[in-house]
Amino acid sequence: MSQYKNIKQAAYDANMRLPELGLVLFTFGNASAVDRERGVFAIKPSGVPYAELKPEDMVVLDFDNNVLEGDKRPSSDTKTHALLYKEWTGIGGIVHTHSTYATAWAQAQAAIPIMGTTHADHLTVDIPCAPPMADDKIAGNYEHETGWQIIDHFKELKLDPSEVEMVLVGNHAPFTWGKNVEKAVYNAAVCEEVAKMAYLARQIKPKAPRLKDSLIKKHWERKHGTGAYYGQ
Amino acid sequence: MSQYKNIKQAAYDANMRLPELGLVLFTFGNASAVDRERGVFAIKPSGVPYAELKPEDMVVLDFDNNVLEGDKRPSSDTKTHALLYKEWTGIGGIVHTHSTYATAWAQAQAAIPIMGTTHADHLTVDIPCAPPMADDKIAGNYEHETGWQIIDHFKELKLDPSEVEMVLVGNHAPFTWGKNVEKAVYNAAVCEEVAKMAYLARQIKPKAPRLKDSLIKKHWERKHGTGAYYGQ
Amino acid sequence: MSQYKNIKQAAYDANMRLPELGLVLFTFGNASAVDRERGVFAIKPSGVPYAELKPEDMVVLDFDNNVLEGDKRPSSDTKTHALLYKEWTGIGGIVHTHSTYATAWAQAQAAIPIMGTTHADHLTVDIPCAPPMADDKIAGNYEHETGWQIIDHFKELKLDPSEVEMVLVGNHAPFTWGKNVEKAVYNAAVCEEVAKMAYLARQIKPKAPRLKDSLIKKHWERKHGTGAYYGQ
Amino acid sequence: MSQYKNIKQAAYDANMRLPELGLVLFTFGNASAVDRERGVFAIKPSGVPYAELKPEDMVVLDFDNNVLEGDKRPSSDTKTHALLYKEWTGIGGIVHTHSTYATAWAQAQAAIPIMGTTHADHLTVDIPCAPPMADDKIAGNYEHETGWQIIDHFKELKLDPSEVEMVLVGNHAPFTWGKNVEKAVYNAAVCEEVAKMAYLARQIKPKAPRLKDSLIKKHWERKHGTGAYYGQ
Repeated sequence: MSQYKNIKQAAYDANMRLPELGLVLFTFGNASAVDRERGVFAIKPSGVPYAELKPEDMVVLDFDNNVLEGDKRPSSDTKTHALLYKEWTGIGGIVHTHSTYATAWAQAQAAIPIMGTTHADHLTVDIPCAPPMADDKIAGNYEHETGWQIIDHFKELKLDPSEVEMVLVGNHAPFTWGKNVEKAVYNAAVCEEVAKMAYLARQIKPKAPRLKDSLIKKHWERKHGTGAYYGQ
Repeated sequence: MSQYKNIKQAAYDANMRLPELGLVLFTFGNASAVDRERGVFAIKPSGVPYAELKPEDMVVLDFDNNVLEGDKRPSSDTKTHALLYKEWTGIGGIVHTHSTYATAWAQAQAAIPIMGTTHADHLTVDIPCAPPMADDKIAGNYEHETGWQIIDHFKELKLDPSEVEMVLVGNHAPFTWGKNVEKAVYNAAVCEEVAKMAYLARQIKPKAPRLKDSLIKKHWERKHGTGAYYGQ
Repeated sequence: MSQYKNIKQAAYDANMRLPELGLVLFTFGNASAVDRERGVFAIKPSGVPYAELKPEDMVVLDFDNNVLEGDKRPSSDTKTHALLYKEWTGIGGIVHTHSTYATAWAQAQAAIPIMGTTHADHLTVDIPCAPPMADDKIAGNYEHETGWQIIDHFKELKLDPSEVEMVLVGNHAPFTWGKNVEKAVYNAAVCEEVAKMAYLARQIKPKAPRLKDSLIKKHWERKHGTGAYYGQ
Repeated sequence: MSQYKNIKQAAYDANMRLPELGLVLFTFGNASAVDRERGVFAIKPSGVPYAELKPEDMVVLDFDNNVLEGDKRPSSDTKTHALLYKEWTGIGGIVHTHSTYATAWAQAQAAIPIMGTTHADHLTVDIPCAPPMADDKIAGNYEHETGWQIIDHFKELKLDPSEVEMVLVGNHAPFTWGKNVEKAVYNAAVCEEVAKMAYLARQIKPKAPRLKDSLIKKHWERKHGTGAYYGQ
């Protein structure tokens, strides 16, 4: 039996949730789960229809993209996952989708403005949008560079990936993560819903202001602060 | 057996209707039912996934937020419910959602204009939008103050909560209520649908006028007036 | 056994199709079927949830709104149906919904422009929007006057209800009809879809022109002309 | 047993997928599958509801529109399919829908701009929009001329139908194709999703630029180039 059974099952379950939540069409997305002790992660194989996917199809790799288990080719976005796991040692799962509204913001190369408490319940800043990368990097190790594009943008904005668990990649689509892959899936759905709400709010009133600081602080703290009182 | 069985069941049923009606994602909403004789209400516990929710999980509190029954933490919005029950003695149930279109209007800090008879069948005025509260109140007893924000806005606009059974809280989301929690759920769906129709109408024609007074009066009266002839 | 069994069943089936097609929320709609030989029609009772509706609940009336069978109060829009049946002797069924996009155009008091062949497959003109009626008529026999509002608008535009089987009532919502109630249901869905397409086309290009005459003529004729070759 | 059993089954399966994918309302679409050895294709009969459709209902024709098998009238768009098969010898299946967002772009007579990598994963250019045809052609052999309209537009833009597998017909709706009819169905869903994303991106930022060339090239090549690494 595979020593990676747990993360393969977790990655499989997470991938299957994506079409259920209306976040992916066909195979336009992927989820992965990490095993920090072993320094490996399990990810969806590339281009396999969800209807045919099985837990044992998940591909296991280390953070340098060496395949350790699995006879299928891993997701084409694997190198982005690998680099994020390598550099951001606190995250336990990653999800990538092309969900419609979040992708539209990415295509507009625009961060999603924090317009309400639904957003503030999850993060205190605009959902960042990393700019499209330079042409030489695109022509090079593209998916690996996508990881750096995300990481560098977080550095530039002084964001902490344990507090801001989602990003748009300009002209591409969202990536989300979390302490585990279930949380990353949850964040993918939150990102899409917040993207839709911000879209509609700005259509209603193009100059509608961002949420004021006191409300951002309050909503974040009631869910994540030392005196948090949301959840059980 | 719990002496609060009826309101716990009613609150449970109402909460379960919210995802069915497409009004909540994950746990972004809550419904409560009141027992006026006993001066208590039952509300959803905080952050428990709908799939796992059971009637016995409902938490029972009095209007001063003392927990009388239940071993789970009540919804983080409980204090808003408690105050509305305390101040508005005619209401029997309350629902809070982050439904997409209604929330978008709240994020735009805009009342939903009365544009058609679908709206007028339910209320004769714009769906009010309470302004975001002052910073000191946000930092203080926030959910309790949210209740006052709603009540004060109704006083300012001279609105009667038995006639106007819904409100947007600016930058946050809608609250709805009714003679019982089933009616509050119904109003939550009406609020979302009316929000979407008004959004679309204003996109089609940004200067489209509000409904004229004679039509407002007629549609209200055929459903709610002394000579009402809608329903059985 | 009821002598009106056929039209009661037809009206029931049609009403049940409306929520299935996503055209009504709760009880915001009604369908009726006519028996031309007997000069009567069967219509949904007012405000009864679809989940509880039974064929025997349908109310049978003549064209002067006298109830002939049924112990429930008929739809509040019954008088509009009755007048349309009385004046337009060629129609066999009527449907009224508050479907979202069509209602948004009605709320904008705007006819739905003929922008493409999907529209032209069904009618050769903009979907007309009858203006809101004068205040004295609203205060009077409102639903009966709604019928006249529709009929007068068709006369003014020189439209034939056997060729144009749908209308918006300004600030209210669409009515559709057809040779039978199944066709009226079909038209209600077409009206909503065409309303959405025209909405989106005008958002993409606000000055996008109407369909040119030659295309309108062609698409109409291939479905409805003497040499029609659509369908079996 | 029919010698065309395979293509009739393939065409049937493809047609049934269209409502499942939310791409057609009622009978507003059609799919066909070709047998290149025999020089024939199977297509949906005209105007038959999907619920009643059976594999044996598919009509088999040659590329000059002679019916070889089937007792039902073929789709009214058959001549467009026939000409595309005749002129573009590399394609194995064709799908025509009136899917909502793609049709809206067609109604605006606008190509769908390439705004992101979701688009670039499938084609490297804007989804072309063939202009509405001249009036004399519309009045003539309309569906046959629709085929020429598509083919001529591809010639004018120097597009290769093996690389660009979708087109909008101005004021009408999309056609898609592929090496087989399953791929044509897939492309119909991709076209609709890309149409929606581009719509939203341009609503968010009306002057949002197209995707830059280096990204277009990269995404196309990772799926379709000589060193492609997407899929198994």
